[in-house]
Parts: sequence; structure tokens; C-alpha cells
Amino acid sequence: MTYCVAISVDEGLVFASDSRTNAGPDQVSVFGKMHVLVEEADRFLVLLSAGNLGTTQAVRTRIRHDLEFDRQPNLRTLPSMAEVAEYLGSINAEQRRKHAENSEHDGAMTATFVLGGQIAGRDPGIFLVYPEGNYIRASSQTPFLQIGESKYGKPILDRLVKASLSLEDTARVALISMDATMRSNVTVGPPIEVLIYNLRKPRLLRHMVFGPDDDYLRELGRSWQGYVEKAFSVLPPLPPRPTELLRVVDE
Amino acid sequence: MTYCVAISVDEGLVFASDSRTNAGPDQVSVFGKMHVLVEEADRFLVLLSAGNLGTTQAVRTRIRHDLEFDRQPNLRTLPSMAEVAEYLGSINAEQRRKHAENSEHDGAMTATFVLGGQIAGRDPGIFLVYPEGNYIRASSQTPFLQIGESKYGKPILDRLVKASLSLEDTARVALISMDATMRSNVTVGPPIEVLIYNLRKPRLLRHMVFGPDDDYLRELGRSWQGYVEKAFSVLPPLPPRPTELLRVVDE
Repeated sequence: MTYCVAISVDEGLVFASDSRTNAGPDQVSVFGKMHVLVEEADRFLVLLSAGNLGTTQAVRTRIRHDLEFDRQPNLRTLPSMAEVAEYLGSINAEQRRKHAENSEHDGAMTATFVLGGQIAGRDPGIFLVYPEGNYIRASSQTPFLQIGESKYGKPILDRLVKASLSLEDTARVALISMDATMRSNVTVGPPIEVLIYNLRKPRLLRHMVFGPDDDYLRELGRSWQGYVEKAFSVLPPLPPRPTELLRVVDE
Repeated sequence: MTYCVAISVDEGLVFASDSRTNAGPDQVSVFGKMHVLVEEADRFLVLLSAGNLGTTQAVRTRIRHDLEFDRQPNLRTLPSMAEVAEYLGSINAEQRRKHAENSEHDGAMTATFVLGGQIAGRDPGIFLVYPEGNYIRASSQTPFLQIGESKYGKPILDRLVKASLSLEDTARVALISMDATMRSNVTVGPPIEVLIYNLRKPRLLRHMVFGPDDDYLRELGRSWQGYVEKAFSVLPPLPPRPTELLRVVDE
């Protein structure tokens, strides 16, 4: 499985992804799921991917070939993030259709992407692109998008993400969300990649990779665990309500 | 949807459940999902239910009728918790089969249960009973069982549940797990029921119901939110690693 999250705040964008790919019990391998598609003077585009590894690689190959052979449209010529999402969606749906014909389980061939970035002169954005090719864009009400094993890491994002968070804090929230997911689900694992796109310094991408024995990641997880245990120990005691006697037998 | 959790600790058992049932966009209603099946001198049996409401009600009706008409086996005569789980599983699988024939979507008719309690002279236990009728028992390595929308509330259980927790602390962990689930998923909602079974005082069940505007539940959620925000603000800063320049285009 996979867990990827993208968060949009006032200062910029933060992306985080795990690297564990599980193609059956004997084939647990490491594949990065974060790919910078274009980083040029007028645009920065990054892709997070979840789902069938064959489909995600086929989608990326097609995108790369369109660029390399200058086929139209391609990532250098599309004028807006929304049109990039549309382009990515149509390739995704096409690749899925192609292989689904040969599969008994249609769902097994699907891939889901988070696309993020900025095209010069326009607002930055993050998009979730579905296997069907349609997509949604994050908004101020929904400032983060997740793909893969997204539920374990959602409560902490719901509690802490807001537009005014600094990029540093946003990256730490993303790492805590990743830590929660890894503790609860063994199919999500390191290396963990974090990418910070600062709106005011768009040329200075900050890209961090945390391996399985990374000191910082371990220290962050340990600190968080300690704080949570301490917070828990000072919660208000249960209300001193009278002990109710339950209905003896159901109904 | 539903979220129910049962936790087994040295001092006893704690059960928590929500009450929201969603049978389509127009039919969001309130149904308790915690049912004490038997509370007699020699045994205490409680059931948490998730899944198709028709199936869960049919299962409970059948259990009640077996008791009422003294059909064998029934909950008063079965000699162990494992045999009660087996009995519940066979009824569950039977009810599912009966209605699945008339449904296009087999999965839509399934129900999943958590069974908990104690029969005099034997260890207490909690069991998860699947739609197929099979079941698993919680152990010291896996001291809690969840049904329904279980992923949102799992990280906090993974972090905090251990055999030595007091019943009071265990109930608060269950409520925090419920709070996380309700914040992240609108299909899980109050009233929240909590039931505490104290091994040393088995006749003194503590049953609490927290409505949507319950002061304690709100205070607990607010305190937890405050502590989490505070904990987050003192986490170690991101490592001061050199900003890496990413490969410009994928591959």
C-alpha cells in the first residue's frame, strides 16, 4: 500500500510520501511515490502516486514521452494547473482501460494521483486525480489531499492543518500523520520523502528523505508519543454519574 | 456507518459505540449499537454491531427468540465465550445467506459483531465475529477489537492501550478514539455509549450515554485538542539538512 499527503498553506505547498510497495506477500519492495515532473523557470509540477504500480509507471512514462517527443499537449505547454490535472486524468483513465480489459478485477488496475505545483503568474494548487480521470482541487475548506491508506493519518490533519501554519509546521504535521499511519499499518513504510515548495522562494525546493533508521524521524515519533501519553494523563476524569443499570435483556 | 471498539485490560472490559445509521442520504437515523444480551448471576454478554441494520436486527431477534422459547443452544446454556461466538457466527452467516440471495450486492447484507463478556469461572473475553461466521479473540498482543469505520480511531489505541491501563483510563482512550473518528467522518455520530465491566465488581456495570451536546464529551474533545496543539508546538524542528536539488525531470 501507500500513503501520500499534500497540504496547501498560505506560505506554500508540502508533500509527503512513503515508499513501500506490496505486490503480494513475497514482494514487498521500495518504490518512491513522489516524482518531480517539471521544474523550470515558469512552472513546478510534482506528482504523488498510489495504486497499481504498472499503471502509475505507464502514466509517468507517457507523460515523459509527450515531453521528450514534444507531443501536444504536454506538461511544458499546458497553460494552467487545472488543464494539467485534466491531461493527467485522461492519461490515467486511458491506461486503466487498456489493462482492465485483460484483468478479472477492474479495481486492481486503478491508480490515483495527487498533482501539485504552480505555473508562473497563477495560484499554486493541489489536485486529486481519480482512476476515472476526474479530479478535485483542494480549497481553503479542504486544504489537504490524501491518497492510499489515508484514514489513519487523517485525524491529526483535521486537528492541526490550517492556512496560517508555517511550512516547517506543515511538514511536521505531515510527518506525524505519516508516523500514525506507519504505526497502524505495516504496508506503509520508509523511506519517507518530504518536499517543501515555498511560494516566496519557488526555486529553492526543500527535499528531505528519511530512511528507516533516520534519527530525526525516530526522535519525532518518540517525542510525539511522549507528549500524547502526557496529554492523556491530564484529561478530565469521567463524569461522576450514577451507575445506571442496563436493561437486563435486549429489548 | 458505525464505529465500535472493545478493549480488554487487566481490570476488565470497556466497550464504546456510536449511534449513527446511514441508509442513504435522506435516512440518517439514530440506532444504538450496544446491546446487553444477558446479564445474569453466572454470565454477562454484550454485543456491538456494525453493518446492515436489517441483518444485525435479525441476528438479535433470533438470539432473543432462542432464549425466550428455550431453544437449544442459547445464550443461557452455552458453556464458554468461544461457543457463544461460534453460535453468534453461525446465526450471522445464516441471516446473511438468507437475504444475500435476493440482493445484487452480497456485501450490502453483511454484518460484523464484537461480542464481549464473561461466563462464571472462566476468563472474560472479547471476540470479533465476521459475516462469514468465523471469529477472532483478542489477546494480550491485540488487546482491542474494532468494527465499522475503524481506521481513524486506531492510531490513538495503538499508542495508548496496554493491559495495565485502569478502566477509567481505558474508557477515556475509547472516547478519544471515538472523538477522532467523529471529527474525520460525519457518518459516525452521537449518542456515544460507554460500558465498563469491572472484573472485581462484575455486578456493577457502569453504563454512560453521551448525547450530542454532552458537556463532558465536549470538554474531553476540547482538552485533547488543546493538548495536541501544545504538544505539536514543542516538537523538534526539522533537521537542518542542506537543501537538495531534485532531479529536474522524473527519471
